[in-house]
Amino acid sequence: MPSFVTHLESAIDGTALPHDELQTTHADRPLWVRYDLDAIGRAVTREDLRDREPTLWRYRELLPVEHDENVITLGEGMSPLLPCPRLGAELGLKELLIKDESQLPTGSFKSRGLCMAVSRAKELGVTRLAIPTAGNAGGAMAAYAARAGMEAFVFMPADTPLVNRYEAGLFGAKVFLVDGLINDCGALVHRGAEALGWFDCSTLKEPYRIEGKKTMGLELAEQLDWTLPGSIFYPTGGGTGLIGMWKAFAELDQLGWLDRSDRPRMYACQSGGCAPIVTAFERGERHAEPFPDPHTIASGLRVPKAIGDFMILDAVRESGGQALAAPEAEILPWMRKANALEGISLCPEAAACLSALAELVKKGELDPAERVVVFNTGAVQKYVEAMECDLPLLPAKGEVDWDAIARS
Amino acid sequence: MPSFVTHLESAIDGTALPHDELQTTHADRPLWVRYDLDAIGRAVTREDLRDREPTLWRYRELLPVEHDENVITLGEGMSPLLPCPRLGAELGLKELLIKDESQLPTGSFKSRGLCMAVSRAKELGVTRLAIPTAGNAGGAMAAYAARAGMEAFVFMPADTPLVNRYEAGLFGAKVFLVDGLINDCGALVHRGAEALGWFDCSTLKEPYRIEGKKTMGLELAEQLDWTLPGSIFYPTGGGTGLIGMWKAFAELDQLGWLDRSDRPRMYACQSGGCAPIVTAFERGERHAEPFPDPHTIASGLRVPKAIGDFMILDAVRESGGQALAAPEAEILPWMRKANALEGISLCPEAAACLSALAELVKKGELDPAERVVVFNTGAVQKYVEAMECDLPLLPAKGEVDWDAIARS
Repeated sequence: MPSFVTHLESAIDGTALPHDELQTTHADRPLWVRYDLDAIGRAVTREDLRDREPTLWRYRELLPVEHDENVITLGEGMSPLLPCPRLGAELGLKELLIKDESQLPTGSFKSRGLCMAVSRAKELGVTRLAIPTAGNAGGAMAAYAARAGMEAFVFMPADTPLVNRYEAGLFGAKVFLVDGLINDCGALVHRGAEALGWFDCSTLKEPYRIEGKKTMGLELAEQLDWTLPGSIFYPTGGGTGLIGMWKAFAELDQLGWLDRSDRPRMYACQSGGCAPIVTAFERGERHAEPFPDPHTIASGLRVPKAIGDFMILDAVRESGGQALAAPEAEILPWMRKANALEGISLCPEAAACLSALAELVKKGELDPAERVVVFNTGAVQKYVEAMECDLPLLPAKGEVDWDAIARS
Repeated sequence: MPSFVTHLESAIDGTALPHDELQTTHADRPLWVRYDLDAIGRAVTREDLRDREPTLWRYRELLPVEHDENVITLGEGMSPLLPCPRLGAELGLKELLIKDESQLPTGSFKSRGLCMAVSRAKELGVTRLAIPTAGNAGGAMAAYAARAGMEAFVFMPADTPLVNRYEAGLFGAKVFLVDGLINDCGALVHRGAEALGWFDCSTLKEPYRIEGKKTMGLELAEQLDWTLPGSIFYPTGGGTGLIGMWKAFAELDQLGWLDRSDRPRMYACQSGGCAPIVTAFERGERHAEPFPDPHTIASGLRVPKAIGDFMILDAVRESGGQALAAPEAEILPWMRKANALEGISLCPEAAACLSALAELVKKGELDPAERVVVFNTGAVQKYVEAMECDLPLLPAKGEVDWDAIARS
């Protein structure tokens, strides 16, 4: 089926650009993908979705790929939306739901954006891709590039988590550690584009990752039977998912698919160790300054400068939400608490959301009776550094102190 | 809804046992769960499934949980069945599909069996669980125990992969390393059951893990529109999944849900470093001797003695399949090849299947035109030891040798 895309639109000044050729940014800022929503409304109803496959491609009409043969898929999407009564009680909430993105290909939400970016890149004739990554994006791009038969180059800080360092290479990408931060990696990818002719898949430097990420919002609406929750807590590094979901809600509203037009308050959650969006939010600014000396165990949040800063901040403010920083020291305790209470493979980035959420409830700034959704953006199993612990060793045979085992 | 279970049945001698009380084994051998399939056939049609949630609970009538409130779920099941044209071509096959179990809770197929075992244990009043594990089972049991609010104890060899060592503890289980093999861990769990009153969740020592694992077969049938593939290659440690799928196919046939009654040939794949089932298969025996000095990078295959040996061997023989050992040295190369060709997070255990499959095709013992399904039982990201590699380090600023990067 053909796509319903009409054009691309500069997010900073509204300039229209054609979508049938390769685009990156306009005035160094991201592009929106625009659709003929009226035509989509005539082509499909929300009831039509029910019989479709349980992947994000069920929203095919709202996605930018022109020809089905360019859909590069590993079966991504329709992640479970899990009720969390124990963790909710711990937070003093009546209804807490976790959208569990750990169950996507390569174990993270990055697969949503990168399946779309890689599919469109393939459709537009690209054969070589490159990406800077602070964590899970590199592995996801490498996996989809492999699936598409494309060449991939991945640049990451030397102190990126162990599993992320290895996975991209396993998917056949050429992987380089960089003695610096993700922004240094981004600069290398930018320079290399001229030298080696690769397409730059950096966050928001190509238009289609937002479209993949917006499916989190589409799924959430469908899973909640077309009534959005009261608030959404989203771990925010580059912010593509938050931006994408906010766009999804607007598109759904325009399609008339939402039973109520109330939108959730969007809470952009960061770590105190790297909180550029929070700083800009508190100062009432639309653009964020680079965060000095960024550090956090939540590697996906270690993004000192996001080119979509104004898009994140616009969405947060329009929604009546906030940008919130979790104290870095509270991330691991919340991660362990959530894992042990609910059995969800919850990553440090999502734990930052829980810490911020707890603080908000404590301050009385969130109605404990409303429905709250937290996004778990990746599988904790990919964060060996954050999981580390000492374990007791027993001999294979002989006496066992069972009391000590019971008490341990 | 009430379950359609009629009774449990000893797999070794057919003795019937009641299902409404806690059961383990009979004559130290596993039990089958038996259903009133005629009643199921009257209660549900295969067409009814279409509108159900994309989890293994869509097959609710064919599952043993009595009351919905005892369903302990993390959204497991309906893993994608991915066409693999590049890897298929490499193997000389016309149609290769991979059932990708890496996208389940805790990143492995173990979640299927353990969600069912934990759900039924809860239903029957158990509050404390224990398990021996060679890899992914411990984390899966711990996650579902956490979700159910039950206490969990996990025993694993000291050289179990790093991620498996950490994940179970993160889900709140009490974890113990054992200076021995999984069978030593199993003996500890067995002894502790008396001392500490826990329920033993060892592979096939409780009846319900098979029922969870059989959903791989149910999903495969539904995803292939009710016609089973020509052959199935399954990585075989304890063998629960192979046994479960073979049971699923029989139940589907009896329900009349299969369009054709042809069953796949079942290939039980092991590593040459631990191949007790292959040895027994080649000797024409129904029971396997303990495999001496077992070692393999595919940790899930390091099961020197399986109590369901005869159930595995019966299924393999009835199906016209074989038990096959991959040379240990070929596992990592096949793993890397599959990851790089298809972008699937394919684990070492599944790579053993690919090696065995390649050899079978080479010997002309498999029709290359038939549809072949390989099970990828876990996410490679959980196998840090198998992923390890050297990566080049670049400076953050300054000159870059782009030619060297292109050639790398």
